[in-house]
Amino acid sequence: MAACRHHISHFTVEFGDCDPAQIVFYPNYFRWMDAASLRYFRAAGLPSWRELEARFGIIGTPLVDASARFLRPATYGDAIDVRTAIDEWRGRSFVMSHLIRRGDDVLVEGREIRVFARRRVDDPSRIQAVVPPDIVRQWCA
Amino acid sequence: MAACRHHISHFTVEFGDCDPAQIVFYPNYFRWMDAASLRYFRAAGLPSWRELEARFGIIGTPLVDASARFLRPATYGDAIDVRTAIDEWRGRSFVMSHLIRRGDDVLVEGREIRVFARRRVDDPSRIQAVVPPDIVRQWCA
Amino acid sequence: MAACRHHISHFTVEFGDCDPAQIVFYPNYFRWMDAASLRYFRAAGLPSWRELEARFGIIGTPLVDASARFLRPATYGDAIDVRTAIDEWRGRSFVMSHLIRRGDDVLVEGREIRVFARRRVDDPSRIQAVVPPDIVRQWCA
Amino acid sequence: MAACRHHISHFTVEFGDCDPAQIVFYPNYFRWMDAASLRYFRAAGLPSWRELEARFGIIGTPLVDASARFLRPATYGDAIDVRTAIDEWRGRSFVMSHLIRRGDDVLVEGREIRVFARRRVDDPSRIQAVVPPDIVRQWCA
Repeated sequence: MAACRHHISHFTVEFGDCDPAQIVFYPNYFRWMDAASLRYFRAAGLPSWRELEARFGIIGTPLVDASARFLRPATYGDAIDVRTAIDEWRGRSFVMSHLIRRGDDVLVEGREIRVFARRRVDDPSRIQAVVPPDIVRQWCA
Repeated sequence: MAACRHHISHFTVEFGDCDPAQIVFYPNYFRWMDAASLRYFRAAGLPSWRELEARFGIIGTPLVDASARFLRPATYGDAIDVRTAIDEWRGRSFVMSHLIRRGDDVLVEGREIRVFARRRVDDPSRIQAVVPPDIVRQWCA
Repeated sequence: MAACRHHISHFTVEFGDCDPAQIVFYPNYFRWMDAASLRYFRAAGLPSWRELEARFGIIGTPLVDASARFLRPATYGDAIDVRTAIDEWRGRSFVMSHLIRRGDDVLVEGREIRVFARRRVDDPSRIQAVVPPDIVRQWCA
Repeated sequence: MAACRHHISHFTVEFGDCDPAQIVFYPNYFRWMDAASLRYFRAAGLPSWRELEARFGIIGTPLVDASARFLRPATYGDAIDVRTAIDEWRGRSFVMSHLIRRGDDVLVEGREIRVFARRRVDDPSRIQAVVPPDIVRQWCA
């Protein structure tokens, strides 16, 4: 059995990402994790969200849970990378890990639990979890 | 002829709205202007965006132009208010002014030129300007 | 022994806080938790950060860990409140809970582990945890 | 006389940068312009802000004025580039232009008027404009 494939996304910490303590304002790490999740899905061959919505009614991968351990601060000008993988399938939900590093230093260990979601047929203002697309499950078995 | 009515929105400058120079990161002023625009429309009696979309296909009021003059800085903990009015109707577009103050001090003079927009019938991925709803024009003649 | 006091902060979900799925873009919940933390400290009688820095060298309360369980989505126009308390003291770190609700509905159960920090004397570019100020410990025993 | 040199910065529009109308939430364009300004200064040979503060007391380039004309919308997944130049020196202030494009399509024509600033000696809580560093003036004569 192959280990799950990962994808590495690159970001630059901007001046405006930092707070008066001159370090990254922490919600921005979740912003980068979210962006890394989408780049992971694209790397796995998943079509664009517009196509997913048009073909399958899937409107996104809303969060069930998100967490992060902050090990080292970063500041503006820093180049960071996010190593993303799916660590576990739990029925309709799945666990993504995001290891955020600056060079060899681990800055943040992040985790998101997500589902693929579509609008409910009986009430389009509500959403429901669907079985994750095969293409993602196959890419990361 | 009555002068145009205005609406005042209140915000608090948060720690995370400020940058390493310890003053508001300036794009946040546009974020507050955008929020003030929507509160203005609601004060004018405009239904919610969801209702506007369901009834008229209006999906928002995209920007044609936005600008701001920055007169004084603000920092976290500051209570600010935004005085919003429609200064001019220009056919399908209109000019909104946003005067951002902390107490009596004017911090920012902002201006947005907007249109009300709906998706094009021939190509829903594109949008087009529509005539502004009467309820807004009447509130601010 | 008195139970720990809590503080409730109020926010409005703005249009710009929501993503193309029309629900709150989740990193914004952490933005509100961070703002709620500071309002909690202010309610507890803690001086402003500027005064804390001038008097004690304390530059903020950086995060050790942050997490959230997302139970229900919210969208623009929603009024939300965040009920914040300190649940546990762990030496120099402490656990804050943030219960985010819209009316009676719990939307998010959030948690932050923080420390009070100052710049290191031997290297001002690095920070170190300090013992939390008495005023906070006494308010929330 | 040589024309002013320009610098091109690259960004990706993320899902979280877009609003419920599925297009970029406009304050984010100013966020990208601000980031492009700093990359421009770095490309011009300006030292890091930390070094500028340590050596010259310069703490940033606060805005005097910012504006943007929005010509075409962008959405998530779009690769955009920002072409930045200094168009005019006006004593202590200077005018930066930011042309934001997706491929050959111009999306936004932005402009910022900035000054280099340091803390006032008589009152460090206030800032004052200083003469722009020679290295920037020489790079962009």
